[in-house]
Amino acid sequence: MTLDAMSGPTTTATVRATRTSAQEPDFDRIHDGLLGSWKDVRLAARARTLDPALHRLDDIGVADHRARVTAQLQVLLDSGAVRLPFPEQFGGSGDAGGNLVAFEELVTADPSLQIKAGVQWGLFAAAILHLGTRYHHEHFLADAIELQTFGGFAMTETGHGSDVASIATTATYDPATQEFVIDTPFRAAWKDYIGNAAVDARAAVVFAQLETLGERHGVHAFFVPIRDASGTFLPGVGGEDDGPKSGLNGVDNGRLHFSGVRVPRENLLNRYGDVAPDGTYSSPIPSQGRRFFTMLGTLVQGRVSLAGAANTGAKIALEIAITYAAQRRQFAGAAGDEEVLLDYPQHQRRLLTRLAGVYAATYTQDELLLDFHRVFTGEHDTDESRQELENFAAAAKAEATWHALDTIQECREACGGAGFLAENRFGQLHADLDVYATFEGDNTVLLQLVGKRLLTQYGRRLKAAGSAGAARIVAGQAVSATAASAGLAALAQRVADGGTAAGAARSLREPAVQERILLDRVELAVAEIAPALRPAPGVSAEELAARFGDHQHALIDAARAEARLRQWRAFTRAVERETDAPTKALLALVRDVFALTTIERDLGWYLVRRRLSVSRAKAVTRLLDALVRRMRPHAVDLVQAFGYEQGHLRAAIASGAEAARQKEARAAR
Amino acid sequence: MTLDAMSGPTTTATVRATRTSAQEPDFDRIHDGLLGSWKDVRLAARARTLDPALHRLDDIGVADHRARVTAQLQVLLDSGAVRLPFPEQFGGSGDAGGNLVAFEELVTADPSLQIKAGVQWGLFAAAILHLGTRYHHEHFLADAIELQTFGGFAMTETGHGSDVASIATTATYDPATQEFVIDTPFRAAWKDYIGNAAVDARAAVVFAQLETLGERHGVHAFFVPIRDASGTFLPGVGGEDDGPKSGLNGVDNGRLHFSGVRVPRENLLNRYGDVAPDGTYSSPIPSQGRRFFTMLGTLVQGRVSLAGAANTGAKIALEIAITYAAQRRQFAGAAGDEEVLLDYPQHQRRLLTRLAGVYAATYTQDELLLDFHRVFTGEHDTDESRQELENFAAAAKAEATWHALDTIQECREACGGAGFLAENRFGQLHADLDVYATFEGDNTVLLQLVGKRLLTQYGRRLKAAGSAGAARIVAGQAVSATAASAGLAALAQRVADGGTAAGAARSLREPAVQERILLDRVELAVAEIAPALRPAPGVSAEELAARFGDHQHALIDAARAEARLRQWRAFTRAVERETDAPTKALLALVRDVFALTTIERDLGWYLVRRRLSVSRAKAVTRLLDALVRRMRPHAVDLVQAFGYEQGHLRAAIASGAEAARQKEARAAR
Repeated sequence: MTLDAMSGPTTTATVRATRTSAQEPDFDRIHDGLLGSWKDVRLAARARTLDPALHRLDDIGVADHRARVTAQLQVLLDSGAVRLPFPEQFGGSGDAGGNLVAFEELVTADPSLQIKAGVQWGLFAAAILHLGTRYHHEHFLADAIELQTFGGFAMTETGHGSDVASIATTATYDPATQEFVIDTPFRAAWKDYIGNAAVDARAAVVFAQLETLGERHGVHAFFVPIRDASGTFLPGVGGEDDGPKSGLNGVDNGRLHFSGVRVPRENLLNRYGDVAPDGTYSSPIPSQGRRFFTMLGTLVQGRVSLAGAANTGAKIALEIAITYAAQRRQFAGAAGDEEVLLDYPQHQRRLLTRLAGVYAATYTQDELLLDFHRVFTGEHDTDESRQELENFAAAAKAEATWHALDTIQECREACGGAGFLAENRFGQLHADLDVYATFEGDNTVLLQLVGKRLLTQYGRRLKAAGSAGAARIVAGQAVSATAASAGLAALAQRVADGGTAAGAARSLREPAVQERILLDRVELAVAEIAPALRPAPGVSAEELAARFGDHQHALIDAARAEARLRQWRAFTRAVERETDAPTKALLALVRDVFALTTIERDLGWYLVRRRLSVSRAKAVTRLLDALVRRMRPHAVDLVQAFGYEQGHLRAAIASGAEAARQKEARAAR
Repeated sequence: MTLDAMSGPTTTATVRATRTSAQEPDFDRIHDGLLGSWKDVRLAARARTLDPALHRLDDIGVADHRARVTAQLQVLLDSGAVRLPFPEQFGGSGDAGGNLVAFEELVTADPSLQIKAGVQWGLFAAAILHLGTRYHHEHFLADAIELQTFGGFAMTETGHGSDVASIATTATYDPATQEFVIDTPFRAAWKDYIGNAAVDARAAVVFAQLETLGERHGVHAFFVPIRDASGTFLPGVGGEDDGPKSGLNGVDNGRLHFSGVRVPRENLLNRYGDVAPDGTYSSPIPSQGRRFFTMLGTLVQGRVSLAGAANTGAKIALEIAITYAAQRRQFAGAAGDEEVLLDYPQHQRRLLTRLAGVYAATYTQDELLLDFHRVFTGEHDTDESRQELENFAAAAKAEATWHALDTIQECREACGGAGFLAENRFGQLHADLDVYATFEGDNTVLLQLVGKRLLTQYGRRLKAAGSAGAARIVAGQAVSATAASAGLAALAQRVADGGTAAGAARSLREPAVQERILLDRVELAVAEIAPALRPAPGVSAEELAARFGDHQHALIDAARAEARLRQWRAFTRAVERETDAPTKALLALVRDVFALTTIERDLGWYLVRRRLSVSRAKAVTRLLDALVRRMRPHAVDLVQAFGYEQGHLRAAIASGAEAARQKEARAAR
């Protein structure tokens, strides 16, 4: 059954509709599926974020907000949950995936808390764990976990954000004293945007170019004390506050610089590279490039957790906006009575297509978490699985964070003036999550990596196929877009669709057809780009770089298409897993809305390449309108199926107050 | 000449490049054109906003921010500028257009100040002026203008935002005492989001349903004292603070309600409707509907000024982001040296297409201001010119405010972590301007009005043409999209383009071709929608309403296309006015980028209807890439041509600090 307008105050997870007939979708099943593979961990994390002590206050200055969030870390520590991913001796169970699930949910309390916790445990302590060895675990890890040492993760420099390999801070080994000397050569090499660095950090994991015996060995990480117990910088260490930010002001970001700061040789986090007392360098990974990427690979958990956290924010926003839209009446409808906003087709377009995207991101996130867990528990940790994980995380993080920002903004606008009040949360959510699109890997840069991998895989496939096979692959993709065979794909579609609009609509709801269309968007784009970027005799590096520039926009688009394809597949697997027929049908409907939204966005791309027949392309928009309307009666149930409670939503317009006001106003007429 | 990276600290208007050769574009001329028809007023307003006393502080609580902005109003008053639009006896000159120009520029100081000033002078005082008569001017206006009476504009109710005609507050005339009795019947009828209402307002212009002698005459405005000098609510008046908002916290928005509040008969602002002492109602406008729209029409200046103000915010953001992108180096390029961000084609796509949109909005705004001025000074004030002004303002406001939000967000992301720091302003600009998309007319609702007018005009054209002419119009538009004549337009394009990519690119740069394409997007969409919405025998009102819903999304899209077409035309007129050849060529280039960005966005729409040939559609993206690259060398000059100074930008990353850091880092290598 559908809880609708006028049914009185909605609504918490506990009163979520249970179905009254086996012909109706079962939202308890959907709820269960959305909770994912770490259901108990997630529910426990949500129970914690109901604690008002963890909530953001609306009108709070930067200093107070920072102090509040710092104090909140202790609450998390007391709960024990943050020890989860660490080894048993540190009170954990090595549950890598579950740990990220709990982090994601912190967004419902305050995104600042999520990021501050991420800095302390997910970056600072995790770097000691993953980049360090037994000595570091014994000397530094417990204090980091137990908040005895607040720490920064000092990687990014003012002059180098996304290009970590080019950082300029140096760590020069001095065999005479068996110390590393950390130096900042110029202003652009100051560490910047470092969480905890402005106030709380007493130490930092500092990334620097390691030099010993006159030779450089690339970027390594060092454990560096930076402040004394009273909070004064140690000799040679300096820095400044990054000041107020447009969001996340509960996190004290700052800058750090070093002048001849000496740390013992043992403070090198030496899992992937070590220096002997005499200055000899050694590493289990001979290639400097591979070593660098291996070290950075331990950071993938940041991207995984941001993807999930951003999606959590989008869920909160959608539940608030859809609850309100199902109660709010505005202009008079045809029958004289005022319609609820959610009955407007335009409003359905705005909110329900985005709801479908959030469903897609949720199922995708669970698969990403499972992959992450398998790699980080060592269950399936190979070079290939790590690379695939990093690629998957890059795609998922870019897509989920952008989708969240777009969704929150649309929800804000869909609620009009009420959406602008702090009591309804949209603005702060947007402001806080804004930076998720560019930190821990700028989305554009991440997508470029995904795109490059697509090119590499395409090249490998060509190579593996041999020259005859390669010709077939090329013919099947790039050439099919040329005038010679133009319309062949389109013709086949006209045949399949029986030449009717109904036929086209039927085809477009077939998963195999959707997958083919979404896959085309990736494969054909790659096949179009690849030939120009292949090194060839007589083509200089400059020329190749220029060509890469020419295709950068198209490559990034292809990578986004790849991200959406992955989401579609994860969603489809969730549909296939469902065994209850009406529930499965509803999930398939939402999946179809997701697929068609994606296809509609690229309609021009498909038509230019004749990969969609005109009649099928026309059917896309019409069908999407129709499916969104079919989603409408389930909209409130679909957001309630997230399972959040009023204590998570904390929005006046989602409290049922609007329905009560409407009731009173209508009674007065 | 082009100021580029490494040329040292950029840049204020005063050091803007002056051209060194007659072959180069003359940016002084461009600057002049961008300043528009009220150049001196604009420059004077900009000189005022350099005053640090008017600037927003980064880390300021709601109460302090409100107090600061309230005090800033006095600074504006002391400057005399805010008296501009009022009659001479009140210190003004009736310069309606110039007044809005000055308001627009307040955004560079603090958008809260713009809105607070807008509430006091643009809404409260302006309502007394425009809706009141001599009595009100004599008794209330001077105090409102001189800040002796802070006032609210109490129109919106919690239960009715965009649908003002349905507000529920009543004003019932009591002949016995010759008073109106103001009442709030239920909670949803509380006035809400009212600027000045939380703290400062001592009076308000209250909109209510006028009732006299048992009969209702629709919405009228009343001058209602609400607080005594000490700030305590007068008897019968109540309210509450809207609390913190996600932006504009310098404005004290609040709620108001009334229980039997009595005001003298004379407090009815009676220009468009009056009640005699005996309770007899009279009005110069007999139709209640027309009377309502006439009264509301005086509010159009709010929309006009928001369009300009939002565009001002977008200019500031773009100048900051493009200055930084021209200095910032990140990854190593092919030549080994690191490239500046603005040399990446993707970065050019992100920033320069939006820069073209801001140019378009700027030229459009000047035309809108001129229209507004002509109507409000009485120079050309007819029913038709008012309706056309309202329509133009609706389209321009929706387009400019959305474009500003999109632009500021893209600029934020393009600056990465630095873009998130308050010192670089993007986040606060976005947060403040966010609500511009929904207040003073929700953009979606405004576009629906624009769409409805398009339908009406189309209907009139059909009617005027007679049945044979109508058939020709229909045949020329809707039918040409059907299979029968499919491809005729596309075929004509192939012929015109000579079947080559170069030919297609050449055609696409022709203004006549661009206009035809942009016009098609509007006309054909309307022709597609209109037949379904025409009242016909046997079609019930419910059925028509349902059909309207079916086409709501398409109608809103058509209205956006209309808004962009108007922008294109305004831009093209600016190009045509330019007489210096290299300057004209550059402006034409930017206009072409604007046109192609618009066309590319709708590529699918055109192709489905075969209004673009596939080869021409293909050429759109390639040509846009090429044109954006051609804009690149002029990018910094194009933003400096806005004419803002460092005191307006106030962003660390636009101060030249980045160039200095880069220089130092490169010297160290």
